[in-house]
Amino acid sequence: MEWTREKRYLPYKDWSAETLLHLQAQAANSKYQMHYHLRPISGLINDPNGFSYFNGEYHVFYQSYPFGAVHGLKSWVHFKSKDLVHWQNLGLAVQPDCKADSHGAYSGSAKEINGKLFLMYTGNHRDENWVRTPYQIGAWMDKDGKVSDKTILFKNPDHITEHFRDPQIIEKDGIYYAILGAQDEENKHGHIDVWKSEDLKDWQELGFLKFSDQDMGYMIECPNLVNVNGHSVIIFCPQGLDKSVADYDDIYPNMYVIGDEVDFENHKVINPSTLHNLDEGFDVYATQAFNAPDGKAYEISWVGLPDTTYPTDDEGWANCLSQVKELEIKDGKLLQKPVEAIKSLRHDEEKITSQLIKENSGNQYELELEIAADQIGNLHLAANDDLSQSLRIAFDTQNGTLTLDRSKSGKKVAIDHGEQRTVSLAKNSKLRLNIFIDHSLAEIFVNDGEHVLTGRFFADPSHQKISFDKDIDYNGKFWKMDTIL
Amino acid sequence: MEWTREKRYLPYKDWSAETLLHLQAQAANSKYQMHYHLRPISGLINDPNGFSYFNGEYHVFYQSYPFGAVHGLKSWVHFKSKDLVHWQNLGLAVQPDCKADSHGAYSGSAKEINGKLFLMYTGNHRDENWVRTPYQIGAWMDKDGKVSDKTILFKNPDHITEHFRDPQIIEKDGIYYAILGAQDEENKHGHIDVWKSEDLKDWQELGFLKFSDQDMGYMIECPNLVNVNGHSVIIFCPQGLDKSVADYDDIYPNMYVIGDEVDFENHKVINPSTLHNLDEGFDVYATQAFNAPDGKAYEISWVGLPDTTYPTDDEGWANCLSQVKELEIKDGKLLQKPVEAIKSLRHDEEKITSQLIKENSGNQYELELEIAADQIGNLHLAANDDLSQSLRIAFDTQNGTLTLDRSKSGKKVAIDHGEQRTVSLAKNSKLRLNIFIDHSLAEIFVNDGEHVLTGRFFADPSHQKISFDKDIDYNGKFWKMDTIL
Repeated sequence: MEWTREKRYLPYKDWSAETLLHLQAQAANSKYQMHYHLRPISGLINDPNGFSYFNGEYHVFYQSYPFGAVHGLKSWVHFKSKDLVHWQNLGLAVQPDCKADSHGAYSGSAKEINGKLFLMYTGNHRDENWVRTPYQIGAWMDKDGKVSDKTILFKNPDHITEHFRDPQIIEKDGIYYAILGAQDEENKHGHIDVWKSEDLKDWQELGFLKFSDQDMGYMIECPNLVNVNGHSVIIFCPQGLDKSVADYDDIYPNMYVIGDEVDFENHKVINPSTLHNLDEGFDVYATQAFNAPDGKAYEISWVGLPDTTYPTDDEGWANCLSQVKELEIKDGKLLQKPVEAIKSLRHDEEKITSQLIKENSGNQYELELEIAADQIGNLHLAANDDLSQSLRIAFDTQNGTLTLDRSKSGKKVAIDHGEQRTVSLAKNSKLRLNIFIDHSLAEIFVNDGEHVLTGRFFADPSHQKISFDKDIDYNGKFWKMDTIL
Repeated sequence: MEWTREKRYLPYKDWSAETLLHLQAQAANSKYQMHYHLRPISGLINDPNGFSYFNGEYHVFYQSYPFGAVHGLKSWVHFKSKDLVHWQNLGLAVQPDCKADSHGAYSGSAKEINGKLFLMYTGNHRDENWVRTPYQIGAWMDKDGKVSDKTILFKNPDHITEHFRDPQIIEKDGIYYAILGAQDEENKHGHIDVWKSEDLKDWQELGFLKFSDQDMGYMIECPNLVNVNGHSVIIFCPQGLDKSVADYDDIYPNMYVIGDEVDFENHKVINPSTLHNLDEGFDVYATQAFNAPDGKAYEISWVGLPDTTYPTDDEGWANCLSQVKELEIKDGKLLQKPVEAIKSLRHDEEKITSQLIKENSGNQYELELEIAADQIGNLHLAANDDLSQSLRIAFDTQNGTLTLDRSKSGKKVAIDHGEQRTVSLAKNSKLRLNIFIDHSLAEIFVNDGEHVLTGRFFADPSHQKISFDKDIDYNGKFWKMDTIL
């Protein structure tokens, strides 16, 4: 089947229920499907949306195109959780059903306001000549999950192109602000645009956020502001960023800066850091973060990249979300840690100490390792018998490096952007790893969240050996992980 | 919308995906929806099918009509589990896609044979004059959940009417047998028909199973044979059973007899007991049981009744499955117990001793009570503040009775068949109760499975008080229960 524009934007009512049921079964039965991460019920998912706390529970939505592994007509699918680990699927929530979002209910955010969940997102509209107008839309979700009262809040001002999207709704001292990704009309550069409202109805533009002297490329997507231990962290996705500004490997990076605080009225970040890669693996994008009522900062990411194909495209589904991570700043560094409740998925704990860790690991586990200083070797995951095929982690705790290598881990992904990712570590120091494997997803936490390397890999599911390539001074634990969906 | 015959049998391809997505979201968001029981993803579910152990996991399917709360064109939806409590939804598995099951892939069973799961079920076919022919179909499911090789095994012989369905596949000493519900042509009475095959291809009828001298009414549905502690238990649903044979309250009962064993060649149960009600509550039907490889006997039931409407019909969905129960025979009595793993859903344990148990229980919990002998009182669940509205359990541990009363528990169900169910207990004896509440479902285990009373109730979800009506000598525990779906 060819994914023509007509097909991708066919209204949901013109697809058959039989097709959808088959796509749902196909996604559920895939050998590569994730089972303790949020994943597509069918079709393609991308950005997390509306990550929030409402009515005593955590909520998250994702961008969904239910009919195939392409970016077609998007809607929001809703999940809620008591612990940020076990999620309940509440199904289609925001659909492209008005003129302003006729070509997609695109990304946005959510915030509990007066007993309802306020949703702020970008409606994608195309006219008969396929000219795009983005509308920033407000809507309200009640406690029964019903979304109503969609209203256009504003559309792109003249000095911003059609690339204007992904509003994050923020409240500070009783005033509402929104930050959006934007491209200026004059220079076609990427910015974060700041807006203000006192009543969520009348909005005024404050201007582009000042957080760097550098050029951010041609567009910024998915800007997010979150407070972490008294600092303001801005997470965002610059597109077309020059690698001299900040080095990265993926087609588009997901970056952050840390500032002291944000001065909204003057639309500037006070004392911003340089840019850093949020994830140092392969496939993280469109991360969304928010502060829970207790002040804790949580993030969740799309594991998938724009303009990238994946091996499950042939099975009619693609991508997943990351596990939720808690953010902390320690000694000026941003740490990303698994939430405490992820431990509730662990079962059948085993202590491990030998070179061969598991002959048959299964495809759904957590591995916790503490490797001594001055060890050099390779850890093979999802390996075949002679370790010639594997997802490989090369470590050198003498000189301080760790490399994730997916070049021999099965079906190929985005090889133009490299098959290895390397991070620098302290020299002559022990190395702590928490490795989460969920079928075709690996999330590797280094030294309690100092680095995270996330990546998809598509190994033969029967490749279940975990082993070092030689004797290594380490100790560790292995757990099977429960299924949540 | 009127549910015409045309509408109910409209092919799935002629329904829109948008309609299905809305029905799925509506079912997921309903206040009455169950969250630790198998429930419809959308529409109506009925009989459990194919309850089995395959490829190292438990499997169950259910009859599904995805497009509303009516008995329309049926398919099988697939779930699997490692522990009989946490289920993974694998979606549509057997669909009405050949002439023999053109009007529904009706109920049946499953058994692992040579590394695949053999499915045996009834295909419902109607001709242009709406004359029904039931076909008994075999099919094979592989480890990836793919169903293929549908074959008609046999259709109804001349002496059986169109009412011929629900085959259970059984293997004994290398020979395959099937038992089916059947109505004889001559007298239009209900029977269990026994068939035999050596290769699953050629089948011969052995005859009606002799297990009672009584007339079983006009039809028997869903016969199941299971071995329990060395006895043969036949579970079945007689329709039109005279109440002089065995008393019951529901529109159709789900009954069982216990025999020493089944002599297949002579199609008779050796030393059968009289008929007993399997569940003494309101809504249990079409129970399916099987023996796991370790010999344990498990059952799962449809919680819902034929020819009965429920309050959620207005929300486009209906019914659920029971929790899985383990069967035991002790002192000649059949016991039905929760499986051990149900305890893994418990959290936030509280010891309880006072008259008021909980002011705000939530809608998803287990309550374990041991009430002393010679106590007379009422336990109110899902109650409003003054206890005038509640799901009431009246107990008298002096004279030995327990009554479940849903007459004041909210929206009404099947009131023509009574709003109370009463069981007799030993006199002057303590009473042990395990009460599982899952929103609109109550499962009450009495004295470690000597009696089970299951029922749907549709209380205002804000009615969350649990209280005795007076001071009672008891002790107990309360747990919130995790969500599994």
